[in-house]
Amino acid sequence: MPGIFSRIVSGEIPCHKVAESDQFLAFLDINPLAKGHTLVIPKTEVDYIFDMDESLFKDCFSFAQKVGKAIHASIPCVKVGIAVIGLEVPHAHIHLVPLQDLHDLEFSRPKLTLDQEELSAIAAAIRDKMVY
Amino acid sequence: MPGIFSRIVSGEIPCHKVAESDQFLAFLDINPLAKGHTLVIPKTEVDYIFDMDESLFKDCFSFAQKVGKAIHASIPCVKVGIAVIGLEVPHAHIHLVPLQDLHDLEFSRPKLTLDQEELSAIAAAIRDKMVY
Repeated sequence: MPGIFSRIVSGEIPCHKVAESDQFLAFLDINPLAKGHTLVIPKTEVDYIFDMDESLFKDCFSFAQKVGKAIHASIPCVKVGIAVIGLEVPHAHIHLVPLQDLHDLEFSRPKLTLDQEELSAIAAAIRDKMVY
Repeated sequence: MPGIFSRIVSGEIPCHKVAESDQFLAFLDINPLAKGHTLVIPKTEVDYIFDMDESLFKDCFSFAQKVGKAIHASIPCVKVGIAVIGLEVPHAHIHLVPLQDLHDLEFSRPKLTLDQEELSAIAAAIRDKMVY
């Protein structure tokens, strides 16, 4: 059975899409550490990010750079942080998190609860700043 | 005055070097979250990682992928995590941290205290697995 992220890629599970290319998808984390917290994934299901082939790995981070710039341009923050942990969902994903301080990238912190309308507005704001 | 990481690049401040290329340097974090915690930096002083030009950004992560694989091959861990925060030292750096569990990438956790001999042995073990 496809994992949750592959089901998001296929459209079976809806997401608040931020950006998309042939190979990659960016969508809002629904349990965000901060408003604008986004996940970037390869559409192909690879568990461990370092197992991606060199070309796909580079292109994935290049895509994440574009998404990170769009987040920074649309969400008030000092910087956008990057985290890859990969111990829960076995489909490589890059967290992009708008940071106000050092603690905003700590995954043990309570997550925000945002309603669908708010998530939808955030995704639209980021999409609007996306430069491919 | 050059920042601390530029002074490491120039050799003015010593480091436990893990890997080096023309453009990038990888060395052990001396206040590690885990044994093998490594920093990857561009040799040129760029503050915000997303401000690197696309080509340098891609190559920096590609170099980090090679270092991440070498860490995984030499340090017992489930996966190697990636974090970029960038709110302290104004020179972009990628943290590569061997992970046993989800909490190993939390920067508020107490850091390990390792003596020079142990850091030197860890760096040598990772260097030995580095494939350029």
